[in-house]
Amino acid sequence: MQAQLPLTDLVAALPATVPFKGPEAIERERGRAFRVRLGANESAFGIAPAARAAMIEAVGRVSWYGDPDGQELRAALAARHGVTSAEICLGAGIDELLGLLVRATVAAGTPVVTSHGGYPTFNFHVHGFGGRLEAVPYRDDHNDLEALAAAVRRVRAPLVYLANPDNPTGTWHERAALEAFMTALPPRCLLILDEAYIDFAPAAAYVPVSTADPRVVRMRTFSKAHGMAGARIGYAIAAREVVCALDRIRNHFGVNRIAQAGALASLREQDFVAGVVQAVAAGRAHYAALADRLGLATLPSATNFVAMDAGSGARALCLLERLETHGVFVRRPAVAPLDRCIRVTVGTPAERACFAERLAVALAQIDAR
Amino acid sequence: MQAQLPLTDLVAALPATVPFKGPEAIERERGRAFRVRLGANESAFGIAPAARAAMIEAVGRVSWYGDPDGQELRAALAARHGVTSAEICLGAGIDELLGLLVRATVAAGTPVVTSHGGYPTFNFHVHGFGGRLEAVPYRDDHNDLEALAAAVRRVRAPLVYLANPDNPTGTWHERAALEAFMTALPPRCLLILDEAYIDFAPAAAYVPVSTADPRVVRMRTFSKAHGMAGARIGYAIAAREVVCALDRIRNHFGVNRIAQAGALASLREQDFVAGVVQAVAAGRAHYAALADRLGLATLPSATNFVAMDAGSGARALCLLERLETHGVFVRRPAVAPLDRCIRVTVGTPAERACFAERLAVALAQIDAR
Repeated sequence: MQAQLPLTDLVAALPATVPFKGPEAIERERGRAFRVRLGANESAFGIAPAARAAMIEAVGRVSWYGDPDGQELRAALAARHGVTSAEICLGAGIDELLGLLVRATVAAGTPVVTSHGGYPTFNFHVHGFGGRLEAVPYRDDHNDLEALAAAVRRVRAPLVYLANPDNPTGTWHERAALEAFMTALPPRCLLILDEAYIDFAPAAAYVPVSTADPRVVRMRTFSKAHGMAGARIGYAIAAREVVCALDRIRNHFGVNRIAQAGALASLREQDFVAGVVQAVAAGRAHYAALADRLGLATLPSATNFVAMDAGSGARALCLLERLETHGVFVRRPAVAPLDRCIRVTVGTPAERACFAERLAVALAQIDAR
Repeated sequence: MQAQLPLTDLVAALPATVPFKGPEAIERERGRAFRVRLGANESAFGIAPAARAAMIEAVGRVSWYGDPDGQELRAALAARHGVTSAEICLGAGIDELLGLLVRATVAAGTPVVTSHGGYPTFNFHVHGFGGRLEAVPYRDDHNDLEALAAAVRRVRAPLVYLANPDNPTGTWHERAALEAFMTALPPRCLLILDEAYIDFAPAAAYVPVSTADPRVVRMRTFSKAHGMAGARIGYAIAAREVVCALDRIRNHFGVNRIAQAGALASLREQDFVAGVVQAVAAGRAHYAALADRLGLATLPSATNFVAMDAGSGARALCLLERLETHGVFVRRPAVAPLDRCIRVTVGTPAERACFAERLAVALAQIDAR
């Protein structure tokens, strides 16, 4: 039977696209596993021992649903950030929270502002709810705050996305610029401030957390510095009324029990996280020196990855493919002008040594052609 | 600043409601933990040792995102059900998949058919996407298949929900009745066949899996017989075009790595699952005998819980509250006439003994007033 499916007009018209092809899918196409996996900005430095212990303990009670309110974790996060539990919304990673906030604010045709070449999963959600993306070019490989604010006013967008530090560039803006940007936004516009990489950033790249301005919705995650990407847990810090709106639509039992336990334990291990941040900084310096030695410029980074400038989109693509052949998984941003770069996650020293060796060979190969 | 939030009209109008108050929230209100937790239909019989080992091993690589395609698990599920991987969609529990399918088919004002007093989370999603619920009364504590099909035709619903075996009643329909129901549905109506409890059901309560009819979307879970509720993993079995539609909107990295590993391992432990099913059947018999001894009727059940008939909604509510006072967590269906029952999950023998003792005391107390 080939009945026509009763899809909504919106969903029926969506393209068959995914935000990212997973490294496993690339491995299946290649027919073998990658030697080093440096393309998904996953932590090379594992999880805190206490988080590991808490997660293993939670496996022992995995027959129980997790607390749908995540009360214990939300209380700990609230205390840490100087807000109330009512100003924290948990989600199965920032990705889920982005989808919820888009759903809460975007209907068919709603204009939404982001940077051209910014986070694909945000764009996926905007398209998925029928929004119209207004994509603002990067300026000198930084989010162009003035142009983003101007676009918001021009198209009357109720939602604007800013990653700070940014992905895929790694660059960041400092407090004064961010505050000026927030001030420049009209009253009826929510700012998604995606701070997935904030743990790696200098203190200056940071506006202190406050929920006084209900327009600012911060997104944080345990996927990066805390090393828990596979557990799927992140949170939004926002005004109470924003959290209430998300509560009316979220998947209430969606944040798994093991992730909640691990996050709570990891939050108490700030020394571990500080050690990861230090190790990542050393890795970034290593990458910068390596790239310099091989004649590649790098973008400044306040994240756990470095964008290396291959000079052109075509050369970056060749390099990416050559690296894949050599068993190295990295990513290339999809959109010009950032597509001239490869984005390389900071690995362990051993992973970086492997990458360094393969990168040199790959560059020699593509330049010999 | 009290800016008005730029919510969609739909989300702005939603009530501040949740599908279920979590047992943890009730415990916080009571000021102490429950002695026995028999209200959420969680498994009392844990997880397979191999699943436990796989999950603990996966904690060791939790810094990596899970495969967004879940390819290995989907292949195993496809082999098990005699379908292709393209006919399996993974989700963070059936709850997430219900939300996705509602999103794919329901716009503002879309009529959706379900049983009055059926699964609250499905209703939550329908309201959340602006659908209009057409709720069909149960008949003799069973889903009324004829009335459901008639309602679909009458309101021209593109979506109908049926849990078989049913929650919160525990009752079920057999193959011939289910097939007649499917036949009676118009071509452009998707049936969500929620089979969360199918592992506990007799073989007769079952239409063999087939994706030949693109209208039938089955939902399965690892939360019940496999004991992995806290891991958050379920799946839909559906025609390829339905899975494609969900792929265009789902949270691609949303199913966590530990759950994927655990589910794959658990799937291979059919002896363990069979043992759980046997233990649950013994527990149901125990509950039936207990209820009979205490003068309560029970509804027939093909699930891991038993609905005990307290005679009236008021008496069931008294009983529920009294049991809470005694440290026993059970649920009462929210809607008449099912609200005359308490729904009690099959516990371990020790949990059942505790429940039996408290139930007898609670009944004596409420009847003495």
